[in-house]
Amino acid sequence: MPDIRPTPFHQRPVFPRGFHCASRNVGLKPTARDLTLFVSDVDAAAAAVFTRNHFPGAPIILGRETIRGGKLRAIIANSKVSNVATGALGVENARRMAEAAATELRTTSNRVLVSSTGVIGVPLPIEKIERGIAGIAGDLQDDPMVGAEGIMTTDTHPKALSASVGAATITWVAKGSGMIEPNMATMLAYIFTDAAFDAPTLDGMLRRAVKESFNTLSVDTDTSTSDTCAILANGLAGHVDQAAFYETLLAGCVRMCETLARDGEGATRLIRVTVRGALNETEAQVVAKSIVNSPLIKTMVHGADPNVGRLLMAIGKCFDCIIRPERTDAWINAFQVVRNGERLAFDDAVVRETLSRDVVDLDVSLGVGEGNAHAFGCDLTKGYVEENAAYYSS
Amino acid sequence: MPDIRPTPFHQRPVFPRGFHCASRNVGLKPTARDLTLFVSDVDAAAAAVFTRNHFPGAPIILGRETIRGGKLRAIIANSKVSNVATGALGVENARRMAEAAATELRTTSNRVLVSSTGVIGVPLPIEKIERGIAGIAGDLQDDPMVGAEGIMTTDTHPKALSASVGAATITWVAKGSGMIEPNMATMLAYIFTDAAFDAPTLDGMLRRAVKESFNTLSVDTDTSTSDTCAILANGLAGHVDQAAFYETLLAGCVRMCETLARDGEGATRLIRVTVRGALNETEAQVVAKSIVNSPLIKTMVHGADPNVGRLLMAIGKCFDCIIRPERTDAWINAFQVVRNGERLAFDDAVVRETLSRDVVDLDVSLGVGEGNAHAFGCDLTKGYVEENAAYYSS
Repeated sequence: MPDIRPTPFHQRPVFPRGFHCASRNVGLKPTARDLTLFVSDVDAAAAAVFTRNHFPGAPIILGRETIRGGKLRAIIANSKVSNVATGALGVENARRMAEAAATELRTTSNRVLVSSTGVIGVPLPIEKIERGIAGIAGDLQDDPMVGAEGIMTTDTHPKALSASVGAATITWVAKGSGMIEPNMATMLAYIFTDAAFDAPTLDGMLRRAVKESFNTLSVDTDTSTSDTCAILANGLAGHVDQAAFYETLLAGCVRMCETLARDGEGATRLIRVTVRGALNETEAQVVAKSIVNSPLIKTMVHGADPNVGRLLMAIGKCFDCIIRPERTDAWINAFQVVRNGERLAFDDAVVRETLSRDVVDLDVSLGVGEGNAHAFGCDLTKGYVEENAAYYSS
Repeated sequence: MPDIRPTPFHQRPVFPRGFHCASRNVGLKPTARDLTLFVSDVDAAAAAVFTRNHFPGAPIILGRETIRGGKLRAIIANSKVSNVATGALGVENARRMAEAAATELRTTSNRVLVSSTGVIGVPLPIEKIERGIAGIAGDLQDDPMVGAEGIMTTDTHPKALSASVGAATITWVAKGSGMIEPNMATMLAYIFTDAAFDAPTLDGMLRRAVKESFNTLSVDTDTSTSDTCAILANGLAGHVDQAAFYETLLAGCVRMCETLARDGEGATRLIRVTVRGALNETEAQVVAKSIVNSPLIKTMVHGADPNVGRLLMAIGKCFDCIIRPERTDAWINAFQVVRNGERLAFDDAVVRETLSRDVVDLDVSLGVGEGNAHAFGCDLTKGYVEENAAYYSS
């Protein structure tokens, strides 16, 4: 895991000065909240990273254009329909969504980031959304959980965190539990702060933190077409030490990853993989992802089945990495199970017990070089199959 | 799918001239057959390909040495324990297994290929196997299904096929249903023929055929440490036209892939993916594997859920491939669902019906270049999770 100091997150998440949110049901889902607005009292410096999927949703296409300005007042997001693979009409609908929010907030549409999440390839019900945006500013309040609830799809609970750094606050709000092997960011993650930074500085910090956190997360190897991670800094708390800010930013992103992985579709366990001693960082990442994504590792953890030879299988299938079987060691929750490429003779009951914990740490030492990496994931369960065999239909 | 003429496989598989097999329970499993012998009356020219996993089992280490001679009389295989990650003692045990079979058949151990399949990292019960090999030659008989049964692990049925080519016969015997994304060959596949070819010619044909067949198969993205595909040609039927032989060889390997995929752990459906128009063959393979391995595609097929946008997600996450969304088309069982990167407005019921068939063909046209590839796989079900959450313990 990244080397971060324990961070005292707030008992209950709060917003930084000047940020508020609202969420509503506008008829995309039967009754749950499906439209969310996050807003800052003043323009905020902003940065964002988006999915690398070749079929980015219309909001991503628009968002890349919007974020170039480096300034945001608001984020407007809907769930249920992702507005992906919807062609020129999709982009037009994303623009209408930004304009409706800008009108409601008396700002301009180039200050509004749009997100949509849900089924791919279905037209966005833009009229319902426009009607829903009208008057939503009247609902604005100060609990980030209300916004977190409005962006949920298959998440079982809303996800928000906050922490203090100097005089400032950082707040993370995210959603996502399936189609998650983010490659630039997870499904949707918004970070708000009242610290003062300019957009290029925010951008640099966001990219570094995302690489160490969200980009090490995989629920199911599938990369969403809607991944977005944005940060807004409205400066109302003034200057904050950058190193301290970055440390807290990273800690919150890592904590949010763990929260997302634990709530992976059908998941019952958090899996944290650490690989040390690979040829370089890239090879360490490949091995860590191979382990965290292996269905046979994921089911082994789910069943607390001490079938630890599967660790070697998952390391060994990284064909293009340098692996020295005779130097390969592995531990489960700090209990050594493999030494020099051979499975140790251990008491099955001990491994069964440790594999049945809420958090399963899989540590591997390759003994090849200095490359280290980590990855977050979860177990594979019947719940995942059930949820995804009828996602569109339900 | 590869362009092969329909091949008339025999109604019931038979062996080529001079091949026989036997299988027994020797106490590795409670009652099922767990030891198998395949034998040719005379030395056969032979070739084999093995797993690329960095932790090859002891039988693979030995087999690479044995196959250099280009001649085999027999294959001896056990199930339940794979003799992988067992160090020097494992290799010694594999040698003892070859020697026991050589003694039983009055040949030399460098004419015997050894295979072991089952749990990784557990010592091979070599004494039980040696006792079991003694006298097994007395059980030799002519039904390949008896041998196929003896090498099963989680397979739900034994797998054997045969076909005629000229005066010769080709017979395929295989096992495998999990830890299958072979990279040189599937778990265990043995091919026997009475056609006359020398070892280098066999080797060339085997590598070509495996590339087009077993290496396009994936049940669960996990590459076994025991993958072995061997071909034995004892020449008793004399010369056969090489082009005709190769065509039949490939057809049988493809058919065996389909059989293995259909019997993938927990699987209820065969998925066949064809990608056309990629930049080159390598990129076509990457996209085909991305689709066939996507848990969200696999569960969509399992639930017959017309959530076809997931096809675009799985294509789009091939970050390093050239993808032109506006030229991307897709079909399910020849019914077009995506045109120019957009999901078509179709009747959900039609797609639901076609997705619920036994065989689901997913065809993608990328419109970028001339690269084509195919891949075989299966749906992801609760049965897979159930089987693999307690494989070691059961």
